[in-house]
Amino acid sequence: MDWQSAIEAAAGRISGHVVRTPVMESAALWERPVALKLEQMQHTGSFKARGAFNTLLAAEVPEGGVVAASGGNHGAAVAFAAARLGIPAQIFVPEIAGPSKIALIKRTGAGLTVVPGEYADAMAMAQRWETERGAMQVHAYDAPGTVAGQGTCLREWEEQGLEADTVLIAVGGGGLIGGSLAWNDGRRKIVAVEPIGCNTLASALKNGGPVDIGVSGVAANALGARRIGSICYDLVRRDGTPVLEVPDGAILAAQTALWQAHRILVEPAGACALAALRWGIYQPEPDERVAVLVCGGNVAPDPLA
Amino acid sequence: MDWQSAIEAAAGRISGHVVRTPVMESAALWERPVALKLEQMQHTGSFKARGAFNTLLAAEVPEGGVVAASGGNHGAAVAFAAARLGIPAQIFVPEIAGPSKIALIKRTGAGLTVVPGEYADAMAMAQRWETERGAMQVHAYDAPGTVAGQGTCLREWEEQGLEADTVLIAVGGGGLIGGSLAWNDGRRKIVAVEPIGCNTLASALKNGGPVDIGVSGVAANALGARRIGSICYDLVRRDGTPVLEVPDGAILAAQTALWQAHRILVEPAGACALAALRWGIYQPEPDERVAVLVCGGNVAPDPLA
Repeated sequence: MDWQSAIEAAAGRISGHVVRTPVMESAALWERPVALKLEQMQHTGSFKARGAFNTLLAAEVPEGGVVAASGGNHGAAVAFAAARLGIPAQIFVPEIAGPSKIALIKRTGAGLTVVPGEYADAMAMAQRWETERGAMQVHAYDAPGTVAGQGTCLREWEEQGLEADTVLIAVGGGGLIGGSLAWNDGRRKIVAVEPIGCNTLASALKNGGPVDIGVSGVAANALGARRIGSICYDLVRRDGTPVLEVPDGAILAAQTALWQAHRILVEPAGACALAALRWGIYQPEPDERVAVLVCGGNVAPDPLA
Repeated sequence: MDWQSAIEAAAGRISGHVVRTPVMESAALWERPVALKLEQMQHTGSFKARGAFNTLLAAEVPEGGVVAASGGNHGAAVAFAAARLGIPAQIFVPEIAGPSKIALIKRTGAGLTVVPGEYADAMAMAQRWETERGAMQVHAYDAPGTVAGQGTCLREWEEQGLEADTVLIAVGGGGLIGGSLAWNDGRRKIVAVEPIGCNTLASALKNGGPVDIGVSGVAANALGARRIGSICYDLVRRDGTPVLEVPDGAILAAQTALWQAHRILVEPAGACALAALRWGIYQPEPDERVAVLVCGGNVAPDPLA
């Protein structure tokens, strides 16, 4: 697959539909300055809007509209993009998404079903809806249109002058890091960071291929895909991407640090990549310039609800 | 006073000590795109760190250290700057500052006295400390060093490519807008926005000079100075700056909009300027490019406390 062209095309397609999220340098988060991209300021609070707009704008959407299963952020992004483009949308959300993400989807006006259980249960219902209603399924991470859309984030960061040697990125199902690896094509070092309780990528590498795992912990409602996407897995294998695991305590400490240092309020998943740096799990060389992608801001409870 | 030189000097002095806060364009907050500067990401959550560092770095600080009276944000900034520079600091905070701002000051390690009553009561105690201990008073808004420091914010925004015709800025005691007017020197249109319940500037204009007023409302713990600073007042008179007043409901709606659109969590004061635009109190011309300075993020309660 020609990822460079696919991501260039995605960037052109979604331009004007997504937020060009700000970047900054912080000297208050680690012993040396760190570059940040504040992708939690994206529409619906995460990078997911990129993949959703790219998919909907590239496709011939059927009359039945679109359907998605989501731990919250992807569903909100699909619902938002569909509403902006005048497409009917139905979102299946597992109960663990929590009330603030569920309210976020409701605000878009999409059809919404809260499914008891976890992500896989919501996915089963979404698949039934797809079959019965003739709706188009928008996969949360393991589809080329989704991955190419997420890849526009690193591309945009480079346009904004990213100078880092190394970029730390959180992993759930692998859409964001997959897109980033696809765009990066080996130019910089990319480090994958996942919570110990949602280590789908590390488990896949250990197992020799994607495998279902149980998920738990503070970031599970965003990073708790049960199985890493095969697109991501293949790119990680291609590039020999380092995969690190961080404990929940490190994630919560990084979340607090972002708030206290810069009034950046993120959900735990949004602080996962930073946690690897602050907790010493990723140890850069003395002259290595490090960047951290801040990816999700849908904290619970909603601070203004 | 040669404000251009003073602000240039301040910018050089505080460089490396303050955060170069990010800027962005939002198409999700108003009917047309709006430029934002996210100054709530500054150290201690507001622009106040600029004036504090400028004052402390320019002065010969006595052995008694520094003292400040503050509704919270200025005190936190002085305490933070003093800690970074190894200077002892004592902060007097009125009770209405609230627990999250008081905790913020405590985290810096400064001496802290919570004063029953409002800003003027804390100021009286700070003045006594100044006399008795030989400490240096850092005024929250009506001192040239403070105003010049705050003026570096608009200067920095211009360096970052600000293209707006008009910049909306909230007013409390007048440090930020005073510094902005001082730097701007009539080049762009600057609009002053204050809450109806803290209309020190509008009251001064009506009265023919600064006058004490009672303060109230959702932004009073940040914008509730009882009297506009004379530096600011003179600059507003010089430039014929428009002064608008916004109701609390508009401020709270703008606060919610910033959070829902971009996961920018601010205190009410930080949303005050945007409120004038969203509520239709400031009505730009059809081709007028508008910018909004987001100035404070110390929301209560602390969302992670």
